[in-house]
Amino acid sequence: MNNEPAHEPVCEQVREPVRVKLTVAYDGTAYHGWQFQPQVPTVEGELKRAITELFEEEVVIIGASRTDTGVHALCNVSVFDITTPIPIPKIANALNQRLPEDIRILSSEAVAADFHPRRAKSLKTYQYHILNADFPMPTKRLYQYFTYQYLDVEKMQEAADYLLGEHDFASFCTASPKSRGAALKTTVRTIYEIKVSANKMNEGAEIIITVTGNGFLYNMVRIIAGTLIEVGAGRFSPERVAKILAAKERRQAGPTAPAKGLTLVKYEYLPENESNTNS
Amino acid sequence: MNNEPAHEPVCEQVREPVRVKLTVAYDGTAYHGWQFQPQVPTVEGELKRAITELFEEEVVIIGASRTDTGVHALCNVSVFDITTPIPIPKIANALNQRLPEDIRILSSEAVAADFHPRRAKSLKTYQYHILNADFPMPTKRLYQYFTYQYLDVEKMQEAADYLLGEHDFASFCTASPKSRGAALKTTVRTIYEIKVSANKMNEGAEIIITVTGNGFLYNMVRIIAGTLIEVGAGRFSPERVAKILAAKERRQAGPTAPAKGLTLVKYEYLPENESNTNS
Repeated sequence: MNNEPAHEPVCEQVREPVRVKLTVAYDGTAYHGWQFQPQVPTVEGELKRAITELFEEEVVIIGASRTDTGVHALCNVSVFDITTPIPIPKIANALNQRLPEDIRILSSEAVAADFHPRRAKSLKTYQYHILNADFPMPTKRLYQYFTYQYLDVEKMQEAADYLLGEHDFASFCTASPKSRGAALKTTVRTIYEIKVSANKMNEGAEIIITVTGNGFLYNMVRIIAGTLIEVGAGRFSPERVAKILAAKERRQAGPTAPAKGLTLVKYEYLPENESNTNS
Repeated sequence: MNNEPAHEPVCEQVREPVRVKLTVAYDGTAYHGWQFQPQVPTVEGELKRAITELFEEEVVIIGASRTDTGVHALCNVSVFDITTPIPIPKIANALNQRLPEDIRILSSEAVAADFHPRRAKSLKTYQYHILNADFPMPTKRLYQYFTYQYLDVEKMQEAADYLLGEHDFASFCTASPKSRGAALKTTVRTIYEIKVSANKMNEGAEIIITVTGNGFLYNMVRIIAGTLIEVGAGRFSPERVAKILAAKERRQAGPTAPAKGLTLVKYEYLPENESNTNS
């Protein structure tokens, strides 16, 4: 037997706008990064289009990590405000039907109206993937940086340990481009964990640099990766990383490693920011 | 001091043709399978073009596994005969310079003139990758079959065990298309190992079916995967696989699982075929 009323109740509820938090996974290969730019495909641009199609309304999207061209994400975060009768958790599916296959919304949830994905305290984890073998692997070519030059993983870890804790990471930051607006207030950041691991393969190894911090400067993880590769290849000593940090000069560090090896793998908001409207 | 003679010796060596064995890795996404077809991109077609460019000579290529559109390989094998002054192990690199990034030659070696990559006794290992989660993963979308329907991995392994050993796999073979020529002599094959494993993730799991055999019929691994998915989802009982085998009828088995989840991961020639010219 169907217990639902035959007709919807006639009194219409007055709806308030809701801040919707999206968790977004994407393959960055086809996009000019996260941030909207006219004329070129961007992840935010695709998201904007899908949201406009679904709600027939233009919205402002605030993204957490503004990843570069070719960088991937398993869990980037973004918010927008909407007044809608659609149950908020169902928005993920509705948007996925309007998005290309290389972008997937993993969840949609209501959060406090003042929740800001970049200002709220958080822990971000990035991984940088390196294939250290004789030849690149075709099925991973868009997700790994390849080098046939032998890398010493233990030396890379030794070097990485100098980066642990709170430091001024000015040496690990590309001068902020105009598009990023005003100069940075501070280049001090904290790295809570940085691990260099290796999955041995038939010939060679897949080396993964995993780094967790409270925030990252522009290109910081890629410059860290580029510097650790110099150490692994024997061109820099592990101790040199301490000097690079102290110098606070970009040109002291190694090159910026290619974007495709980088993936944002975790984005955790800290409890003091627990701003889910359910709480 | 340079001990090499100032001039090359004038007597020219008479060169014999050499059978060259290539180990080839590729991302099958962009190709209409391995086998050459005019007008459309195929892995063999690209290889043919690169070999012709390098040696300025057309050759006949014999491939080991004629993978379908969208199927990947870490180590397919092929041979061709050539008379060349280039040291055989260097051919891999020379061809890679002429191949697109989604095809890589991992090695080139001289083998006996009568070595035939399909006729020589071998063990082949395929993997079928399934993402069992709420949403597909954009960075793996071309390498995994996605289903949100919960799959019971233990039941899948129980079902897979019925396939171990020598059987007539007629139920697990797509009727051979005209392009494959004459009817098969036999549909009897031996599976030496079949494992269903799961890597748990935040939500859901990546399920990998790994199967090793002395040979596989057309679409056999994809039909096995499609059948095990039916079992995992609870639509088939594990015991039903025994009946499917006994029926020797394609329509008894589950559907052919999508090509993109399939990768040829290992191709081992058995010792009695040790036909390297060095031995």
